[in-house]
Amino acid sequence: MTEVIDLAKRLMAAPSITPATGPVFDVLEAMLVPLGFEITRFTRGEGEEGSPEAPVENLFAIRRGPEGSKHFAFAGHLDVVPPGGGWTSEPFAPEQRGELLYGRGAVDMKGSIACMVDAVASVPADAGTISFIVTGDEEGPALLGTRALIDFMREAGHQPDLCLVGEPTSVNRLGDMMKIGRRGSVNIWLEVQGTQGHVAYPHLADNPIPKLVAMLAELDALVLDEGTDWFQPSNLEITDLEVGNPAHNVIPEAAKARISIRFNDCHSGASLSEQVAAIAQKHGGSALPIISGEPFLTPPGEFSDIIAAAVKAETGLDPEPSTTGGTSDARFLRALCPVIEFGLCNATMHKRDEAVAIHDLSTLSRIYARIVRAALERK
Amino acid sequence: MTEVIDLAKRLMAAPSITPATGPVFDVLEAMLVPLGFEITRFTRGEGEEGSPEAPVENLFAIRRGPEGSKHFAFAGHLDVVPPGGGWTSEPFAPEQRGELLYGRGAVDMKGSIACMVDAVASVPADAGTISFIVTGDEEGPALLGTRALIDFMREAGHQPDLCLVGEPTSVNRLGDMMKIGRRGSVNIWLEVQGTQGHVAYPHLADNPIPKLVAMLAELDALVLDEGTDWFQPSNLEITDLEVGNPAHNVIPEAAKARISIRFNDCHSGASLSEQVAAIAQKHGGSALPIISGEPFLTPPGEFSDIIAAAVKAETGLDPEPSTTGGTSDARFLRALCPVIEFGLCNATMHKRDEAVAIHDLSTLSRIYARIVRAALERK
Repeated sequence: MTEVIDLAKRLMAAPSITPATGPVFDVLEAMLVPLGFEITRFTRGEGEEGSPEAPVENLFAIRRGPEGSKHFAFAGHLDVVPPGGGWTSEPFAPEQRGELLYGRGAVDMKGSIACMVDAVASVPADAGTISFIVTGDEEGPALLGTRALIDFMREAGHQPDLCLVGEPTSVNRLGDMMKIGRRGSVNIWLEVQGTQGHVAYPHLADNPIPKLVAMLAELDALVLDEGTDWFQPSNLEITDLEVGNPAHNVIPEAAKARISIRFNDCHSGASLSEQVAAIAQKHGGSALPIISGEPFLTPPGEFSDIIAAAVKAETGLDPEPSTTGGTSDARFLRALCPVIEFGLCNATMHKRDEAVAIHDLSTLSRIYARIVRAALERK
Repeated sequence: MTEVIDLAKRLMAAPSITPATGPVFDVLEAMLVPLGFEITRFTRGEGEEGSPEAPVENLFAIRRGPEGSKHFAFAGHLDVVPPGGGWTSEPFAPEQRGELLYGRGAVDMKGSIACMVDAVASVPADAGTISFIVTGDEEGPALLGTRALIDFMREAGHQPDLCLVGEPTSVNRLGDMMKIGRRGSVNIWLEVQGTQGHVAYPHLADNPIPKLVAMLAELDALVLDEGTDWFQPSNLEITDLEVGNPAHNVIPEAAKARISIRFNDCHSGASLSEQVAAIAQKHGGSALPIISGEPFLTPPGEFSDIIAAAVKAETGLDPEPSTTGGTSDARFLRALCPVIEFGLCNATMHKRDEAVAIHDLSTLSRIYARIVRAALERK
């Protein structure tokens, strides 16, 4: 138990506001090398600090099992969101107060990575192949991180059989929820062009706003689907309207809106973009989509059973297989193999005084160890 | 003919960007006193320059006819809109080039006021009572001008029988159109309050935009009326939309819109405000109306016949009795007596190189003289 707390503290003591590079990866490398892992680190991005192309460090670590053995992968990130103000203790000086360990990244997700390392330390090297897929760019644009790691793994011929992402999926108690999928996300910018004019002479103008209103009414009334066994219904929200016309006697030239769709695996970003564009065109407008992520689902089965059994053994809980919430790097990792997310409690993630229960760290370490063993023992 | 051009030049040479005070009124006073008019001038407003309460000068002039004679009023304004750039000659140095006299106010409406003065000079003093109702605040907020003059006239017991406003109502040729009415105008600010939240968790938020969209769709579909014998149908335009939400994953807290209604005498500003407020409330929103003006109509009859006959005699044209276009001070003067607007061609009003045809000035002077005589000769 002392060991996993020490590992978490060492990772949390290395400042790593997204995008992360350097020291925090040195710390992780120093933990994994003694356990027999080969390490590959590389940096992507040559932009200036603060730009979407700012440098991002990525780490892939592998400990090969016997020929023909299974390959289990842990995935996660060492970058954290900015601490913000108002902390009781220094966000990058982890501090134990009572039953809690405070510091940025405690649950999202340096604590989980400490548990992964601690878990692996208890698994014999001949049990099978284990890898770590760790990026410094999950909390930011996510352009140069996990996607680059997946490209690297494919080129190097590393093909895991199962992948567990250590995002903080637990809600009220460690073990109450795992994420077997996530919805996809697309944002679409809508615009209608008209002809400016004076409100007293509307026949000389072409007001774009009624067209936009009719378009939005039709979009708002869409029933995208009824949900599936594992996903809630896809949802469309209108998130912005913009005309910017200060003159109350002027009919404006253009009207804009923005929508955001969170969608399940009945759709793809492209299919929804086409559906919305057709409605926009019908009302004389145009649509510009930006797809943030496609949905993923690892249907309940062997992998979720392994996780549920491990959680049950250590906590007595039956983790709910959920697909709610925002996006995560699992949307990319799904291209490799079945992916499920399971980790610490998320109540304090991204907030000030982020903290993990010390007891949860040791419990999660044991849960992860059970999952690795069971995954590698599969037929 | 020389005389009316000279009068116009003298008025146009006095800069009087709205709100107007001082010198331009001195010029008009100096023209009217020799014709036997008693002059009352007063200034309203004590605000700073540029504020809606900035000082405005008003002038009332009256030449009393014999006891029991009719009272005919000319109404107009000496303020002008700012000249803007790009003029061929100085906007406040009236310049004759070819058949045109250039300068700010040439048609809107110092040229018309020169014609009124010139016309009155040809009418015998015993023909009846003639007055001038002239403000320096028609092109601005119109709060301290004609409304104050009407208050003054009521207190002083001046009650005209007919009033002609010298706005530039002619379109292609002098005499082709008079305005027997104007639509009213009301602008209404609409707002729906919701609850902000994350698009991934819409059940925890309350998106105000779909409610605003439904409200606007209902307002846009309203048929306010089918028009009347003299008015086109009332018209509602949506002129602005505003949410101002830069975050594409956030459901916003509030959504706003603005509408502008130009309405005929089937409605009042208050009745429309109530109708819109009821629709806004039905959709969970609120409405804040600002009524710019009520409609007015002087139905075709004796007064329009007098004007039409005068126009026909001087130009051969039959002026169309119209109610189109924006608002004018006639919306206030209607409280005094029947009001009709008739004046110069409006093609260059408010534009650079505003100009009046010299021939039109002398023609309009003769038309106005015919109108005054006929109005004072009425039974």
